[in-house]
Amino acid sequence: MCHTNKLMYHTEANKIYDELLNQLPTFEGGTSFNIGNIKIDVQGKDGLGGLIEEWFGVWAKENNFNITDPKENGSSQEFPDYYIGDDKALLEIKSFDDSAGANFDLANFDSYCKSVANLPKRTNADYLIFSYTLNGSKLNIQNIWIKKIWEITCPSARYPLKTQVKKDVIYNIRPSSWYAKNPKFKSFTTKEEFIKALFDTQEKYKGFNYLKKYLENTV
Amino acid sequence: MCHTNKLMYHTEANKIYDELLNQLPTFEGGTSFNIGNIKIDVQGKDGLGGLIEEWFGVWAKENNFNITDPKENGSSQEFPDYYIGDDKALLEIKSFDDSAGANFDLANFDSYCKSVANLPKRTNADYLIFSYTLNGSKLNIQNIWIKKIWEITCPSARYPLKTQVKKDVIYNIRPSSWYAKNPKFKSFTTKEEFIKALFDTQEKYKGFNYLKKYLENTV
Repeated sequence: MCHTNKLMYHTEANKIYDELLNQLPTFEGGTSFNIGNIKIDVQGKDGLGGLIEEWFGVWAKENNFNITDPKENGSSQEFPDYYIGDDKALLEIKSFDDSAGANFDLANFDSYCKSVANLPKRTNADYLIFSYTLNGSKLNIQNIWIKKIWEITCPSARYPLKTQVKKDVIYNIRPSSWYAKNPKFKSFTTKEEFIKALFDTQEKYKGFNYLKKYLENTV
Repeated sequence: MCHTNKLMYHTEANKIYDELLNQLPTFEGGTSFNIGNIKIDVQGKDGLGGLIEEWFGVWAKENNFNITDPKENGSSQEFPDYYIGDDKALLEIKSFDDSAGANFDLANFDSYCKSVANLPKRTNADYLIFSYTLNGSKLNIQNIWIKKIWEITCPSARYPLKTQVKKDVIYNIRPSSWYAKNPKFKSFTTKEEFIKALFDTQEKYKGFNYLKKYLENTV
């Protein structure tokens, strides 16, 4: 969990990340369910990603960070999960089971190509990533990372960008094993590498790409 | 919630059902999630069916009913959810959002055809069905029914038995609107009607059926 270049991330994201690391030893909990006077401790993982995302928003406010939840204003927009700072920078929250490895969806592939072409600043979003263990019903946050998208994506055998493919259809952008010592495919190191892989994948898959549009919209 | 023929159900199931109705006014609750000292009330419905099923098992034991959870003995069998009585009769637990109508999966179609042919007594299982409302994070059990499978299944426009069909593939057996006053398709009234619809659907879908095997195994 060391970072060579904190400057890369938003100031508010860095502050949030530092405080999360501070409090990490206290981050244990879980889910309980009751009807009437009978309460059970939940052992399933269903919906845990959404719960951690929601919990994080409450935690950040209680800790006086400058954060807004777009869904609070009635918006049902898909991204970002949160805005941070006075400049409303984009913050995304992801989580995964530490004993299984990162396998969350970063974004729907088609939607991401389109939205990045129209709004290149989406690629500047900061990602806070939580890994957890669930022993019985006891949840523990194991690790927390702050990342840019090109640090948590990589190529795959089939496409320049690793994606979830079922029956030849690309669904979602999937993460690299950025935390692994010797991953089969290394994460990208610059935004440009990621952008090239994104649109090369689109070209290979669709026969066209949005690179030109992206460049036009990039100021 | 009146029943013309209580004799149809297992004695222990009837007792359980009566006590559930007794306590129904107290059946409110919900799900909470915490990490560290921050706790949130969960508003999502993800996994609620499994939670109600698990809660029911604890409730039934606390209320001294004769009930066993097959999963407690390390079995990962798909059915039944619980055994009841000294004769280990089959009990299934289902639930649905009262504001949306019953849309749960009764069983995988193929597996059910096979298992009923080999083990006809599966059709004698009792079903306890809970409908709930979720207002914000506040869960209320609205109604509870005790039913046999032929009372909660019906024909559909496409097949003699209502099933979930996607791209011409049958996935699950889906429930009738047994609680509705004027449903488009009425529920069956006897086990024989249901069995005929089940295997006629299998014949139409697969070109063969297990009726002969079912009859051979029916004592």
